Order: sequence, then structure tokens, then C-alpha cells
Amino acid sequence: MAGKLPVSPLAPKGGFPDLPVIKGVRFGTVAAGIKYKDRADVMLAHCPDTATVAGVFTKSKTCSAAVTDCREKLGGGSAGGIAIVVNSGNANAFTGIAGVTSVKRVCEATAAATGVPARNVFTASTGVIGEPLPDAKITDALSALAAKASEGDMADAASAIMTTDTFPKGASRTLSVRGKTVNIAGIAKGSGMIAPDMATMLVYIFTDARVSFDTLQAWTAEMADLTFNRITVDSDTSTSDTLMVVATGGADVDIESAPVAEVAAFRVALFEVMKDLAHQVVRDGEGATKFVTVVVNGAETNEDAHKVGMSIANSPLVKTAIAGEDPNWGRIVMAVGKSGAAADRDRLSIWFGSTQVAKDGQIAPGYIEADAATHMKGEEVHITVDLGLGDGTATVWTCDLTAQYIAINADYRS
Amino acid sequence: MAGKLPVSPLAPKGGFPDLPVIKGVRFGTVAAGIKYKDRADVMLAHCPDTATVAGVFTKSKTCSAAVTDCREKLGGGSAGGIAIVVNSGNANAFTGIAGVTSVKRVCEATAAATGVPARNVFTASTGVIGEPLPDAKITDALSALAAKASEGDMADAASAIMTTDTFPKGASRTLSVRGKTVNIAGIAKGSGMIAPDMATMLVYIFTDARVSFDTLQAWTAEMADLTFNRITVDSDTSTSDTLMVVATGGADVDIESAPVAEVAAFRVALFEVMKDLAHQVVRDGEGATKFVTVVVNGAETNEDAHKVGMSIANSPLVKTAIAGEDPNWGRIVMAVGKSGAAADRDRLSIWFGSTQVAKDGQIAPGYIEADAATHMKGEEVHITVDLGLGDGTATVWTCDLTAQYIAINADYRS
Repeated sequence: MAGKLPVSPLAPKGGFPDLPVIKGVRFGTVAAGIKYKDRADVMLAHCPDTATVAGVFTKSKTCSAAVTDCREKLGGGSAGGIAIVVNSGNANAFTGIAGVTSVKRVCEATAAATGVPARNVFTASTGVIGEPLPDAKITDALSALAAKASEGDMADAASAIMTTDTFPKGASRTLSVRGKTVNIAGIAKGSGMIAPDMATMLVYIFTDARVSFDTLQAWTAEMADLTFNRITVDSDTSTSDTLMVVATGGADVDIESAPVAEVAAFRVALFEVMKDLAHQVVRDGEGATKFVTVVVNGAETNEDAHKVGMSIANSPLVKTAIAGEDPNWGRIVMAVGKSGAAADRDRLSIWFGSTQVAKDGQIAPGYIEADAATHMKGEEVHITVDLGLGDGTATVWTCDLTAQYIAINADYRS
Repeated sequence: MAGKLPVSPLAPKGGFPDLPVIKGVRFGTVAAGIKYKDRADVMLAHCPDTATVAGVFTKSKTCSAAVTDCREKLGGGSAGGIAIVVNSGNANAFTGIAGVTSVKRVCEATAAATGVPARNVFTASTGVIGEPLPDAKITDALSALAAKASEGDMADAASAIMTTDTFPKGASRTLSVRGKTVNIAGIAKGSGMIAPDMATMLVYIFTDARVSFDTLQAWTAEMADLTFNRITVDSDTSTSDTLMVVATGGADVDIESAPVAEVAAFRVALFEVMKDLAHQVVRDGEGATKFVTVVVNGAETNEDAHKVGMSIANSPLVKTAIAGEDPNWGRIVMAVGKSGAAADRDRLSIWFGSTQVAKDGQIAPGYIEADAATHMKGEEVHITVDLGLGDGTATVWTCDLTAQYIAINADYRS
């Protein structure tokens, strides 16, 4: 299926961005023929021994062997370097002891090819669930892959990890800390089975700053919660969700000891790279034709606002109405009502774009449906809900639900 | 939209069933022109003062004015009789104080037309959310409606309450208690916005047995939890869900004082009528082509089994795979993993029909995909999951997710 679908109409204009080189990280890709023909399907990122690596992973109770392995290895240091190996076409999930053995074999072959100790090799697999991973195809390719890996080349890495994605996803920010240039650049894959819970899909972000493991891990978890954990394509949570952030130290700048304003700027830049990649995943949502932002204000708590936002963003009736360009606020009311969060029908207000359609539990005085309908025709749909109860707020992002989603998923074995 | 969609391929063969007359309940319908043209859209059920009435309603926090009104009136006795008035085409939900006033006006007009006191009139409205109910169309029609109401005629009542339904839904059981014939007959409507939480959609069940309010209410709630609360079409919960059960006493048989075996038989019959109607709602799921039974065994608790069942039944990826006739057990694994219930990947087993596809966390030895694929081609799909943890069990019912669901909901204003 991958490569055969037309590029999403919501793909960023201008194609894949120019990403800055993260000094010391060598990327390589190879076509190992795991499932797809005539395209790269394995990527390697070889990081120096100055690097720290943080990660958050799916909360799924049926997570893949690679996720379990990565979770165990996290925080173990980087003596001898760090390697990340990802294959597409097969998720190596629900493959029992054979899956565990496959992960071990890939880690050992990576160690042999790169000199990085196997305990510092982090793998991920994405694609079909439940079929044995033909790991020999990967291990056979690793020596050549390691030999040709070079700095830069994240564009090829972004393409190698795609499955039903219709475009490769990348984002970066560059800032100055203590007078030195610091880069943050990341890649992501994801299009369906997207309703992250803790982390999501496959996302790899690299920076040449120096950040300690504890801090990098804390920032990664905090920002994942505000970005990847606030997007949904189809309410389905993957078995393989992985977000890893690598700080190589190659720019010779220690972030934690920098002036407060520069620490803040770095955090904002890291957040923006994550949000950018998260939005690109939604923009490549299977069958998507609209990018939808849902803002919830006035909830009793931020948690309640998040609940209401996800209830709206996951509702098939809301999503099909958006596909039909219908300012159907009755379905927003329904989704608020079923969310489980505190709500009072008679205090609820709703806007499509800047048009208020409902106020205090009924149609807004002077509401003209044509105004809202015009907003719905655009590619970007903005829904605001005010519950009128407190100060809780949240923003989540989703896409519409179209017949193309059905076509993709009734045919594709994921 | 109603009446223009082709009848669901899953509709019961043989059309609407012959329902027994429930002595003392007079049904009437009228075309009031609320939204649909050339079809009845208001139904009246006029019950005798010997009747008791039980009900369960949506848990939605944005429930309709009629639901609030019914909830308040429940348990208030039946002096002067009981009346139920339902309109289709407009849900009178999220209509503020105007909606509350509309309910009051309909109750008062019903009281004037039937002699039943307004406090014993239970209304429901189904259709578009958020538009003011043109209640004068209903109140103007009530005198003629009350005058022509007669025993029997539940088929017309079942048709009058339809919205996107493609067929009217009815079910009955007849049994003998203390040597006398007792009938239970019910009607339902529902096709989309179906993920009941407590009760669902509009369901009215009548029996000529005599049952006290407390017992009838307890049995109704208990059985709703095992039937209507175990079905889902699209994970969206309606603002108007209403299930009412009326026991008229017309058969002159007191159930509660009957022999234990006959009480049990009555409870089974009531359960079967509810389950039959619940299944008919799934069979009329918007765009449905497959009727899907999901059985979960081996969970730590029954609640966990229910959670896993609903997670599978609500997963768009599982439902589209079923539409594509693909025995995609990887998506079942995914849905188990995200459900929130206790699960152990390496103890999980899965069957499609009688074919075991997965055992103890991996593909079952000797599994032949063609066997499972043959099962998926049928109109009835049976998925069994064993979590291997305990004795918790649950069965839920759903349908597949097809492009027709999108077409219906991108066009229809519900």
C-alpha cells in the first residue's frame, strides 16, 4: 500500500524540510526487502558515546518485543555509543518468543557492525502485527548499512520508516545557547492506528546539545504529553509507539547550566519540533482531507478538558460531519455529553472558526449557519468549546473520517 | 434520509414480526410533518391505570429535556393511566429552556387528549440535535391521534419512531404463568450514534403481566446492562437514549408471586425480547454488512471482559478489517492492548469462528489463514478472545465499518 496512495492533501507545502546536520549522528538506510519492494525499509542512526537518549513508549498491554527491550535499556548510559535500528513492513508484535529472539539478533548484529555494545542498541519495528519478523534480512544488511552511514541524510531515514504514510515527516529548530548554535531535528512516521497514550508511533529527534539523561527523559515525557498524546487519527493505539530523543553533545553546549532564558528557549524549540511532527502525523491521517484543531476551555480541570477534546476528536459522527463540511454542532454536544468529564448542558458554548454557534446550552442568538458552513469548507477546521465551569483547558488535533480511511483499512493488513 | 436508504442486508428475514396484542395498550401514529414528508412521525401508546412503568436513560451529561422529564416522573404511579408520546425528526436536545417548555406543552396536550394526567406522560424525541422542536405540529395532532389509538398496531408505532433506520424493529415472547398466557412485545429504533451507556436509543417494551414498579425497574436495569449496554455501532452515545418497560397487568397474572420457575421463565423472556431488539439495532447499524459477536473469556473480572469486548467492537481498524473480510488478528491484539483491562500478551488466544488463529501470544500452531478467511466471508462473524487470566467473561455485539457509514453521516444532519 505504501507509496501507492496519493500524497495527503494536507501534506506540508514545499515537501520535506531541509534539516540541519546533527554533528556526530550518522544515518544510513537500506532496502532489505522485508515486505515492500524497491524501497528502503531499514534505517540506522549511529550516535556517539557523548550522547544521552530519552524515550517514551506505548502503554499498550500487548506491546511489541522491541518496546519492552527499549524500555529495559533506557537510562543505561552510552559508553561505546548508541545505535537506533528501525524496520518498516513488519511490526514484530505478538510474535512470542520468536519476536524476542529477533530483537536480540538484530541488536547483536548491530553491535558487530557498529562497535556499539548490544545493550545500547534500540530497535523498533512497524508494519503488520503478528507475522514473524524475517530478521535475517536485516542482520545480513547491517554491515553494509553501518559502513555507508553518514552525517545528514535524515530525509532518507524518514522515508525508510514509512508504512501507510503518504509523505516523510521531518521538523527542526535552530537556536543559540551561550553563543553557540544548537540544532534539534526529528523524523516521524504514522498515519493510522494513531491515538497515542504516553508516546506514539515512531518518532526520533536528535539534538547536538548536551542534556543529562534525567532531564532529557523528564522533558521528553512532559512534552510528549502536550503534543503526541493530544493527537488522534482513529482512536486506535499502536503496539509499537516509540518516541526517542537523543542529545549528542556535538555542539559542545550544556543546556542545563545555560541561562534560564536559553533553557526556556531550548525547551520551546524541542516542544515545537514535537508539535510540528505530531501535526504532520495528523496531516497524514489515513484518508484525511481536513486538519482539525479542537480547543476546550472552561472545564473543571485540565484533565477534563483533555477528555472532552479527545471525545470530540475521536467521535466518528463528528469526524464524518467534518468530512461532509457540515457545521453539525449537535454532534459536538453529543461528544461532550459522553466524554465522562463534568459538563452542564446549559452552560455549554461552541464555535466553528470565529462563528459562535451555541451559547449557554442552545443556539447562539443571531447565528447564521452560512458563516459556519464557510469555515467548514476550508482545509483547517477550528472547533472551540467552552464548558463554562472552571479554568481547565486543552488543545487536541485530529483529522476528518472519510471513505478513503475505510478503503485503506479494509484492504491493508496492518 | 430515512426511507431512502436500502434496507440493511442484515435485516431479519421475513420482515417485521407478528407481535401479540398487549391488552389495554392502545397505539396510534400520525404524520405531523416535523421533518419527514409522507410518513408517520409521532406515536402514542396509551396504557391503563393498572400499568407499572420502568425506564433507564442515557448517562450523557448533555441529555435531552425529555430524558430529564422522564427520569423525574419515574416511580410516580399510574393513577389515571400512562401515556408515551414519541416523535422522530427532531431530538429536542440542546434546545435550552425552549426545549423544556416544548416537553411541558406536549405532556399537557397529551393529558387533554387522553385524560392521562400530565405527570404520567413520558415523551421522547429523536432526530436532529439542536434545532427547536416545532411542538405545535405535535400538540395540534394529539386529539385525533388519541381518538384513533387502538390495541395492536405496534408495527405502525415501530415505523413512526424511525430516523436513519432502514427497517422497523420489533420482538416478542409469549409464555405461560400460573396457567395464563403472558405476552411481552417491544419496539426499538436506532442505527447510528449507538454506544449505549445505561440504556439506549428508543426502546418500548410492553407486557400484560403485573409486576411492581421496584421489581420491574430492577429487572429492566439489570437486563439493559446485559443487552443494550453491550452493543455498539459507532462508539457514539446519544443524548436521547430511552428504554421503557410497561407492565399493564392486563393478563391478570402477578409475576412476583408466581412459582420460582415461572418467574425465571418471565425474566428469560424479557431478557430475550431485549436482546432481540438490541441485535436488530446492530443489524441496522449504519452501513453495516456484517453482524459481529465478540466473546471475551478468561479476563480477571467480568468488567475487564466487558472493557476488552467494547475496545474490540469500537476499534475502527478491527471494524474496517471485518468489512474487508480480513481475518486480521493483529488488530484484535492491538484492541486488547489499549482497552485498559488487565492483559498478558503471552497468554492471549484468539479465534475467528471455530478457527484458532493465535495461542499464548503468537500465531497458533497449524493455523491456516484460508479457514479463518472463509469464516470472515459470512454475514455473521464470531470473534472469541481468551485472556488466560481468570474467569471474567462478556459478550458484546457490533457491526462492521464501511464506506456507507461515512456516506450516511457526512450527509445526514443528526
